[in-house]
Amino acid sequence: MHELRKDPIIGRWVIMAKGRARRPGNFIISDSSLEGDLSARSCCFCEGHEAETPSEIFAIRKKKSSKNKPGWQVRVVPDKNPFLGTGIDLTPKGHGLYDVLEGRGVHEIIIESPDHVTNLADLPVEQIERVIQTYGQRLKELEKDERLKYILAHKNHKWTRYNQNIAHAYSEIIATPVIPMRVREELTGAKKYFSNHERCIFCDLIKQEIEANQRVVFQTDDFIVLVPFASRFPFELWILPKQHDCRFSRGVVGLEKELAGVMRHALQKIKMGLGDPAYHFVVHSAPYFRPTSVDSQGATIEEDYHWHIELMPRLTHMAGFEKGTGFYICPIPPEEATSFLKDVEVVL
Amino acid sequence: MHELRKDPIIGRWVIMAKGRARRPGNFIISDSSLEGDLSARSCCFCEGHEAETPSEIFAIRKKKSSKNKPGWQVRVVPDKNPFLGTGIDLTPKGHGLYDVLEGRGVHEIIIESPDHVTNLADLPVEQIERVIQTYGQRLKELEKDERLKYILAHKNHKWTRYNQNIAHAYSEIIATPVIPMRVREELTGAKKYFSNHERCIFCDLIKQEIEANQRVVFQTDDFIVLVPFASRFPFELWILPKQHDCRFSRGVVGLEKELAGVMRHALQKIKMGLGDPAYHFVVHSAPYFRPTSVDSQGATIEEDYHWHIELMPRLTHMAGFEKGTGFYICPIPPEEATSFLKDVEVVL
Repeated sequence: MHELRKDPIIGRWVIMAKGRARRPGNFIISDSSLEGDLSARSCCFCEGHEAETPSEIFAIRKKKSSKNKPGWQVRVVPDKNPFLGTGIDLTPKGHGLYDVLEGRGVHEIIIESPDHVTNLADLPVEQIERVIQTYGQRLKELEKDERLKYILAHKNHKWTRYNQNIAHAYSEIIATPVIPMRVREELTGAKKYFSNHERCIFCDLIKQEIEANQRVVFQTDDFIVLVPFASRFPFELWILPKQHDCRFSRGVVGLEKELAGVMRHALQKIKMGLGDPAYHFVVHSAPYFRPTSVDSQGATIEEDYHWHIELMPRLTHMAGFEKGTGFYICPIPPEEATSFLKDVEVVL
Repeated sequence: MHELRKDPIIGRWVIMAKGRARRPGNFIISDSSLEGDLSARSCCFCEGHEAETPSEIFAIRKKKSSKNKPGWQVRVVPDKNPFLGTGIDLTPKGHGLYDVLEGRGVHEIIIESPDHVTNLADLPVEQIERVIQTYGQRLKELEKDERLKYILAHKNHKWTRYNQNIAHAYSEIIATPVIPMRVREELTGAKKYFSNHERCIFCDLIKQEIEANQRVVFQTDDFIVLVPFASRFPFELWILPKQHDCRFSRGVVGLEKELAGVMRHALQKIKMGLGDPAYHFVVHSAPYFRPTSVDSQGATIEEDYHWHIELMPRLTHMAGFEKGTGFYICPIPPEEATSFLKDVEVVL
């Protein structure tokens, strides 16, 4: 069984994926991006290959089609080699300085299309809308499990992890029994700002960005797409809903179609403007806190966080300085990245 | 001029390297490692090419040789395109939510050999000793400048940053006017442990690791080399001095030769065992705190930090999950990595 281990100095949790691929040679990745496109004939994520994946957890399907058979539009299955096992045992096991938890949680794969399409950006808006609906459904369902402290929907495009070789477009949901460090920092930062100002920092940030109009790539009635002021990576984009809500699964309701259009437009700008690079995006949403987390002033977590999506094209690699210090070097200023992306024409 | 920008939510500083390489195409790196080896004839870091670098700051030289001329053994020059400009203006400039500092500090290059050698691991122990002496000298010198809050000696092997194309072995020193987030977390964690136990967490960790003997790759009289319990990356190694000292520039005095042997042995194990991968290492040392940083209990920073070197072979790449959450997935357990590395035979 995998383990969750905590660094005794920093407090960062690491998933130790035991038995995944043991020989050192397995980790030597000569190329970070998937080159070429496996044909649909051999792709286990294509329609007609349902028997090659674990049994489906959820699907958006055509009427009269059956589970684990063709006829689906978006399909969710457990990962074949999950990072986290199912069933959650929260008994901490430690020795001396070290804390350990059994590596249990959830690891699901969201297959974004029945056809062999490799980039989410190339799907029609209605299909991206279904993918977003699926995120919402799965998050809503998983939020019911009180043992899961954090649920993360995310996507790695043109990306192999430990020599997986699947080009078909998919996203992942990983749910963990602890709150990851970076998420905790973000929640703490937002909470601190709220305590001081009684306002959401993201709402204030949106207001300031619209006024400054230096880093806004585009906006719609309900969403704003901007390059963050202190972006870590060149052409990093944040997609923020203008309406305040801490949680994706609730805030996105009724806005799925608009968000699908926004996502497609942003992803196409990245694809057309930057030469179809690899990219990652991560849905940031408040964890499902129990009612006990109402704070001493009576404010609940609901008010001080604001869901959003962070999108990172993969154009540079982190070096020792960044890994050693958490101090990022971004080679292109956000204002220049914004101006460049604004000029990229996208045919919808 | 470059800028330092602070993320308003998390508090993380980012260096915005303006004007370094503006066109988007410049950031598309198709291969993360340097392939092939530029010949010494065209290498600006080789002996005889001194005029092709900025004027030297420091060198270990043969007697009667002159500055910026042949005859050196290790040579330190400013980076040609530094991330941080010289001269430090600490006047904060902000607007609304955002904090900005002028991006000033220090960015130096340590050329590790006059000959065209590409991997520090392949240098003789005496030469690695000179490199370590040089780190010590430069850190000691830079620690005198009270405006520099953190100084980081580090190395990226087989690594291009923004299409630099230098194969010759070198390290870098970057000094910043703010304390990077990851460093602050480590200092805070160590301080907290010291407050609770009146002992250094690293000293306790060394003791526990020697007793457990599951993650110790090798040790000498004064150093221990281990795979950390919650390693982020496969085959990550920490090189720790057994003698407590918070600061590298002071703690390493008299141990340079022994540390050189330890470094060479560790680097050769990585090279031989893992197929000569890219690697990074970072010297972790306490920042030069002013006397005012003595805490309320009268404890100074001296007691609660312990210098060490973190060495990370680059075998995997970070994906969206790691970037989004700071929650690392390590595909090989530290105990297995240790056992593998112990078995790698190194010819000294």
